[in-house]
Amino acid sequence: MDVDHVSSLLREFKTGELSLEETVEKLKILPYEDLEFAKLDHHRLIRQGFAEVVFCQGKTVEQVQAIVQRLAEYNHSILATRASKEMYTAVKAVVADAEYHELARLITVERQKPPVDSERFILVMSAGTSDIPVAEEAAVTAEIMGNEVRRVYDVGVAGIHRLLDQRQLIEQANVLIVVAGMEGALASVVGGMAAKPVIAVPTSIGYGASFGGLAALLSMLNSCAAGIAVVNIDNGFGAGRLASIINQMR
Amino acid sequence: MDVDHVSSLLREFKTGELSLEETVEKLKILPYEDLEFAKLDHHRLIRQGFAEVVFCQGKTVEQVQAIVQRLAEYNHSILATRASKEMYTAVKAVVADAEYHELARLITVERQKPPVDSERFILVMSAGTSDIPVAEEAAVTAEIMGNEVRRVYDVGVAGIHRLLDQRQLIEQANVLIVVAGMEGALASVVGGMAAKPVIAVPTSIGYGASFGGLAALLSMLNSCAAGIAVVNIDNGFGAGRLASIINQMR
Amino acid sequence: MDVDHVSSLLREFKTGELSLEETVEKLKILPYEDLEFAKLDHHRLIRQGFAEVVFCQGKTVEQVQAIVQRLAEYNHSILATRASKEMYTAVKAVVADAEYHELARLITVERQKPPVDSERFILVMSAGTSDIPVAEEAAVTAEIMGNEVRRVYDVGVAGIHRLLDQRQLIEQANVLIVVAGMEGALASVVGGMAAKPVIAVPTSIGYGASFGGLAALLSMLNSCAAGIAVVNIDNGFGAGRLASIINQMR
Amino acid sequence: MDVDHVSSLLREFKTGELSLEETVEKLKILPYEDLEFAKLDHHRLIRQGFAEVVFCQGKTVEQVQAIVQRLAEYNHSILATRASKEMYTAVKAVVADAEYHELARLITVERQKPPVDSERFILVMSAGTSDIPVAEEAAVTAEIMGNEVRRVYDVGVAGIHRLLDQRQLIEQANVLIVVAGMEGALASVVGGMAAKPVIAVPTSIGYGASFGGLAALLSMLNSCAAGIAVVNIDNGFGAGRLASIINQMR
Amino acid sequence: MDVDHVSSLLREFKTGELSLEETVEKLKILPYEDLEFAKLDHHRLIRQGFAEVVFCQGKTVEQVQAIVQRLAEYNHSILATRASKEMYTAVKAVVADAEYHELARLITVERQKPPVDSERFILVMSAGTSDIPVAEEAAVTAEIMGNEVRRVYDVGVAGIHRLLDQRQLIEQANVLIVVAGMEGALASVVGGMAAKPVIAVPTSIGYGASFGGLAALLSMLNSCAAGIAVVNIDNGFGAGRLASIINQMR
Amino acid sequence: MDVDHVSSLLREFKTGELSLEETVEKLKILPYEDLEFAKLDHHRLIRQGFAEVVFCQGKTVEQVQAIVQRLAEYNHSILATRASKEMYTAVKAVVADAEYHELARLITVERQKPPVDSERFILVMSAGTSDIPVAEEAAVTAEIMGNEVRRVYDVGVAGIHRLLDQRQLIEQANVLIVVAGMEGALASVVGGMAAKPVIAVPTSIGYGASFGGLAALLSMLNSCAAGIAVVNIDNGFGAGRLASIINQMR
Amino acid sequence: MDVDHVSSLLREFKTGELSLEETVEKLKILPYEDLEFAKLDHHRLIRQGFAEVVFCQGKTVEQVQAIVQRLAEYNHSILATRASKEMYTAVKAVVADAEYHELARLITVERQKPPVDSERFILVMSAGTSDIPVAEEAAVTAEIMGNEVRRVYDVGVAGIHRLLDQRQLIEQANVLIVVAGMEGALASVVGGMAAKPVIAVPTSIGYGASFGGLAALLSMLNSCAAGIAVVNIDNGFGAGRLASIINQMR
Amino acid sequence: MDVDHVSSLLREFKTGELSLEETVEKLKILPYEDLEFAKLDHHRLIRQGFAEVVFCQGKTVEQVQAIVQRLAEYNHSILATRASKEMYTAVKAVVADAEYHELARLITVERQKPPVDSERFILVMSAGTSDIPVAEEAAVTAEIMGNEVRRVYDVGVAGIHRLLDQRQLIEQANVLIVVAGMEGALASVVGGMAAKPVIAVPTSIGYGASFGGLAALLSMLNSCAAGIAVVNIDNGFGAGRLASIINQMR
Repeated sequence: MDVDHVSSLLREFKTGELSLEETVEKLKILPYEDLEFAKLDHHRLIRQGFAEVVFCQGKTVEQVQAIVQRLAEYNHSILATRASKEMYTAVKAVVADAEYHELARLITVERQKPPVDSERFILVMSAGTSDIPVAEEAAVTAEIMGNEVRRVYDVGVAGIHRLLDQRQLIEQANVLIVVAGMEGALASVVGGMAAKPVIAVPTSIGYGASFGGLAALLSMLNSCAAGIAVVNIDNGFGAGRLASIINQMR
Repeated sequence: MDVDHVSSLLREFKTGELSLEETVEKLKILPYEDLEFAKLDHHRLIRQGFAEVVFCQGKTVEQVQAIVQRLAEYNHSILATRASKEMYTAVKAVVADAEYHELARLITVERQKPPVDSERFILVMSAGTSDIPVAEEAAVTAEIMGNEVRRVYDVGVAGIHRLLDQRQLIEQANVLIVVAGMEGALASVVGGMAAKPVIAVPTSIGYGASFGGLAALLSMLNSCAAGIAVVNIDNGFGAGRLASIINQMR
Repeated sequence: MDVDHVSSLLREFKTGELSLEETVEKLKILPYEDLEFAKLDHHRLIRQGFAEVVFCQGKTVEQVQAIVQRLAEYNHSILATRASKEMYTAVKAVVADAEYHELARLITVERQKPPVDSERFILVMSAGTSDIPVAEEAAVTAEIMGNEVRRVYDVGVAGIHRLLDQRQLIEQANVLIVVAGMEGALASVVGGMAAKPVIAVPTSIGYGASFGGLAALLSMLNSCAAGIAVVNIDNGFGAGRLASIINQMR
Repeated sequence: MDVDHVSSLLREFKTGELSLEETVEKLKILPYEDLEFAKLDHHRLIRQGFAEVVFCQGKTVEQVQAIVQRLAEYNHSILATRASKEMYTAVKAVVADAEYHELARLITVERQKPPVDSERFILVMSAGTSDIPVAEEAAVTAEIMGNEVRRVYDVGVAGIHRLLDQRQLIEQANVLIVVAGMEGALASVVGGMAAKPVIAVPTSIGYGASFGGLAALLSMLNSCAAGIAVVNIDNGFGAGRLASIINQMR
Repeated sequence: MDVDHVSSLLREFKTGELSLEETVEKLKILPYEDLEFAKLDHHRLIRQGFAEVVFCQGKTVEQVQAIVQRLAEYNHSILATRASKEMYTAVKAVVADAEYHELARLITVERQKPPVDSERFILVMSAGTSDIPVAEEAAVTAEIMGNEVRRVYDVGVAGIHRLLDQRQLIEQANVLIVVAGMEGALASVVGGMAAKPVIAVPTSIGYGASFGGLAALLSMLNSCAAGIAVVNIDNGFGAGRLASIINQMR
Repeated sequence: MDVDHVSSLLREFKTGELSLEETVEKLKILPYEDLEFAKLDHHRLIRQGFAEVVFCQGKTVEQVQAIVQRLAEYNHSILATRASKEMYTAVKAVVADAEYHELARLITVERQKPPVDSERFILVMSAGTSDIPVAEEAAVTAEIMGNEVRRVYDVGVAGIHRLLDQRQLIEQANVLIVVAGMEGALASVVGGMAAKPVIAVPTSIGYGASFGGLAALLSMLNSCAAGIAVVNIDNGFGAGRLASIINQMR
Repeated sequence: MDVDHVSSLLREFKTGELSLEETVEKLKILPYEDLEFAKLDHHRLIRQGFAEVVFCQGKTVEQVQAIVQRLAEYNHSILATRASKEMYTAVKAVVADAEYHELARLITVERQKPPVDSERFILVMSAGTSDIPVAEEAAVTAEIMGNEVRRVYDVGVAGIHRLLDQRQLIEQANVLIVVAGMEGALASVVGGMAAKPVIAVPTSIGYGASFGGLAALLSMLNSCAAGIAVVNIDNGFGAGRLASIINQMR
Repeated sequence: MDVDHVSSLLREFKTGELSLEETVEKLKILPYEDLEFAKLDHHRLIRQGFAEVVFCQGKTVEQVQAIVQRLAEYNHSILATRASKEMYTAVKAVVADAEYHELARLITVERQKPPVDSERFILVMSAGTSDIPVAEEAAVTAEIMGNEVRRVYDVGVAGIHRLLDQRQLIEQANVLIVVAGMEGALASVVGGMAAKPVIAVPTSIGYGASFGGLAALLSMLNSCAAGIAVVNIDNGFGAGRLASIINQMR
């Protein structure tokens, strides 16, 4: 409950600008827009610092199109995840400045670059080349939310010198995102190298007993290095979002 | 065993209308029709208040067509679940008034609207837009069985104000169906808001560690709110059927 | 948000009985009591028709004792689940009329019998003798919440005639609770016998590939009979609570 | 080690018909044929009463074709399971009397009907229409191995009267094969109705928490009825083979 | 429904020996005894050839005692599985001729040896010494049900010559029970050696990735040898019961 | 590799203070102490801002005692997790100022309070009273690492008003730790209420289909609220450590 | 850290050939090549005896093409696993002597045959014909790494004589690779037949409760035969690589 | 089949020293001793280079005692794994020179040290102190089988410098055994550091989502480093045995 909002409502009620019924009604109404199949939370920008992000999986192309169109009327920056190319084409038809990041399957709209503190950067690392799509989802998410992002890809632990070579960059980073499939060991090694928050993203890269990313997920959850937290398998967006929140704390 | 039916058989036997053999035979025969590949339970309408519902998955198009055709000769209302468009086309050819609900993948025939008590409504809620197909399966099922149904979609807990805004509707509902994928938390929050039966339907919406709906299923089974029961993942039909039974109790 | 409560607060504010700050504060305060380690929801009796139920597992004996003692000051009926005998002894020392149901591991206090409609009864069935503790948890829960309960135990499907013999009782019941371990098939058979709501409770009775009740849980979730919903493994309380809610609907 | 075979070899060695080296070599050689990618066990007809059965999954079309062709030179009856239509076409080109059972995905060759004892029949039951392909795999397997087979399909427990109506047939059967997906409860009920061996076949029919047949599998393994054994999910062939072995015991 | 029983009831009704109500009532009554916490199926001896077997796990000592006592009044042979020593002591106090098989955790009463056909024997094999308790449960079960049983223990596949040495015995056996923990490979090898029914019993012997017997269970279900069926992990009783049914078929 | 350290070594080598062999040797030696059964990483204080934390599970009492004793010689603050009371007694004998947090099973030594910025606090929330031990592990960990910590316990989502009442505190917190068992829904609701990093800790509180905390873990990983990361089940320490790292970033 | 390399760097520094900064920098640089999306570990040939192997799954065709092209400039032998035909075509366009092993899905380049000790051979065995693709992946891997390889396919344990017939070959082999799906029992039997290292490769061949190779994996991990180690499901490459390392030890 | 043995038998048969029956019988008899509950494979020393190893879990104290006693009559070295102290006491009473390794739970008898090549050593590494019992099981196993063993404990990847410091030892080792619980990442890093066979042993050390060692097991199976094979969780014996076989190859 927003105290200021309630206070001003109460004052309007006291002065008679609002009736008892109107006041009760307004107290219950919060700022979202109802498209019937979706309730757009336009308040989220204020509450959480970024507009509602569209999760496209399971939605029809028409639904994605309508939602992005509406959001684009109220927001400078928009992000839609797990979007197919077909969804992008439909969106592009109604939001001309929408862009598509094919590897990361993201649709973005960015009308006004947020100010970026280039000193405080997020480092996105991937264990293998095959993990890059998820790493890019994290990186682009963090960028559109106003962060400096650097990328170091293909530094899996089987060639530990490639990783040790990045020590300086790791130490300079403000937040680390570690993206790895297979056994996900990269998170533990990086976690032991610096005292910065490490967000581990297991990927579904692998086969057999990787069980769709379960191996990497369990590995990361059981990391012997403290200071690591984990997001869902292939959830580059979640990692990028959390890294952005941490990176923008003062 | 139906006592009245047995009594009347016994009386006919005593009066000689039926021989000993005939009576024994009749006692064993129950009212279903054998299509060889299916045994149609025409008795179910009497026993359970609605005709046998056709589960189309794994059946051939020809089987679905034949079953619906036969059921349509004996019943006013028919429901077939998990039906493909191809199945619908085949059914339509022999049962002209069949309708198809594409999102919900249901075939329905409704020749005589059952009386509906519009005061006692079932509220179908979905956490996200992507959960709507399952929610619609529940809603249409409850409607064809003679219930007033209201829908509130996209009220997931990450924007709790959207949900709290529905409090009045939640309190007025007679039975609640909560459809949610991902972490399925909506069921717990709704379960704590009213003292009405809550039927929770986990959906397979999600990815990675959702494991095809397992996350939502386990979440709902372990709900800290009492008064919640759970049906199978994506089983909108089962939820609609149970809600209908509860809603029509007096 | 309770509309009446808000309205009366607003009126007091308008008349000056409450200052702006007091009104804002009151709007935020809801009726629970903070024991620091627990927040007692005294409002729940009004909101959900029964006092907050104490889940004893994982709590210390002292915590259970303190919580029940406080609840006993505000409520006529109290229920504490998964309580050890040691917990009961500690509670008994401070709430003299507390009772212990050993098999069901429940502590109850019942100072004023709620009115019971003996026509509308809940039927609790168990597949085996070993399932009785969970069945009793369900039955006692439903009784203390003001329901007529009947019990039919040891009617597993391997001796189907024992079950068929209960057909009349099954048809007369208003709500059915089916408690079964092992393969949990009882729920499906009962579900096909009547058009009443069936709440299925899987139990952890079994061994080997029962995996602590997983077999019965999956079996019940996949029941071919419609109108069944499932609660957590061994969750007799949840089934009793839901059955009570349904049974008391009008 | 075949005693007779060894004895005759030893005798030939003693008489000098075989040299020491030849005898040692022969003792090691057992009757199979090496196609390099497959070792055809022509001995199996003698050892187990039926020729080697071809498991087609994972084999190339060419491999299936070559194997069946070779087997057809030495055997009267041939069975190939999990065969695609494309495999059948290739086989048909080289073994003209091969037949294809589309639902059951079986290729059969039957040049000489084995004698069948029609008094001792195997009863194949399915819970639903969707389970028929697996049931047919069992039935055709048993038939080609020389058994009388009867079929009762769509007698799931949710309409228990349809099942009870088959009691006489169940009691007359010599061996029972129960094919069921979803919760697989049919096996337990049938298991309690007669004292004949019941072979339970879980199927992958279902969705959500059926987890590809796991629910039915666990259900059947945990059956409260004794005298039931279980084969792999969708393994109609294995059930048919075992039923045949049992049915032909004297 | 027993046709003879119904016929005779109908005749008595026609002659007036039974009134309409009495006849209806009798038609519904089946022969079991209700101890409230258990319904003793005295009819099972007739229906399935052996008295109801008591599953002791999860029952109280008093319940086991009372059940066995009642069964002992009506049956010559009694079997109680998964019985603790404490249960046995309680039973012994009321059924003096009860015996306890400690390794197999069985209580048996055997007042009249059933006739045994010693030519047709069941062969119980165990892969290791640690699997003997489960193997004994199977063997004693089969013996009390009137079968000749032979035992071959500790013939795991890692020393294949120990197993091959039993070939003659394997070929002579009528039914084979193969008990194995760890990887359960014994079932497959035995299954390939003879054309007799093989009942495989996975045990929970093992550690780590045996996951309580899951490894052996899955192994046996996926056996490359046809003619094998599987019972629950550690279910020696079920295997013995099924082997007895098969062994006594003619 | 520490550039300054290497540089100074190289300078000593150039001036002849170190021989070639000595320099090579020193380049390889890093500052840890070898107790044979443990390698104490005294360097960790410098590298990661806190001394090595002792994970006691699986260690002998003697090992824990020796490790803590050695660490106490080099560090002001020590933390040992998952310590039994017996371990604490042994430690206390050699490190007199060690303290034991019984609920949280932590041994701490704190000789010099680190400076704490009381404006920037970490908020530790628990869904239930039973989750408090894990929550305390997180809270004490964060405190000994120099953070202001506030606690709000028993605010599970089934009584959503108890949680909403904490909105102001949630908004003021710098980092949030959400500890919840059962269905773990608290994390999602809190995650939607503020734009601060949320570290979710699933607990093993629950039963049946909670599968030792798996339900809460999956629920949190699949949270519909962005900005949440998850640590291992019951890993209060890891959450406290990560929250401390984030809270101390500038 | 390579002592010689460091020593020579130090000497160059002492003589002034390298400055302090240059020396520090060189100490950190290790020989790999950065393609941005991949870091090619050209050092691996020296460190591990074979060039970096390309894991193609999850990479784009362009990435695979570029990586193989670069590797081909520095190495005589190249191996790329899990390569599609489309990838091969792209590689072939830039590396003319690349070859494709269709069944095994391998791309190889082999410009200079390594010397092979034909006395010490690796024996690759498969349980079934369907396991051959994985077996070939192992065999070709071992061959390109310079080993003599022999193949024995389709010797599953259900026809144990086919396997026993290979005893001599098994005893002569230096390392054994056992490839098996379904229940994977072949590994245990082979493991008991010789005192050579056995590398077991579970395959995903099977259906139902094979759960994508899980059954074979668990079976092999729980083998009662000592001296067996297991690689990932379908990981023929890993087995071939390890066998090569062992086979080339002296 | 042993060719020499068969040849000599055949010669004795030809000369008449053996009758036909005797020869057939001898051909079938293989050298093991039958204790009824165990078949002692005295032939294993010859066949596999070490006497049969006793797996004590699930055996009675008496069985272990009898087996070790018999083995001690025929062998110089004996190994019994997973032995309780009680078992050791019983064994000690009959085999006076038996020794007990408490941490590793091994009983050993070693009457004649096998010759050891101290140049070729096996390196046993553990990630943590808590993993030492499993590491010791591996080390003692390898030692009693005649290998030089070196140990490096507590070198988990979170303090990567501790591990890198062991590089020289790692490069010198002939075979590596890597023992690790939690996320098991040590295996991957070590696997990338040298071209020697790495045997990875996951341990059950951990909690929560380690699921009894599953996390480490899956992690190791999915290692991005080639040349690694895995044994069962906590299977130090198996790793030691395999390492010994590899280490003694020439």
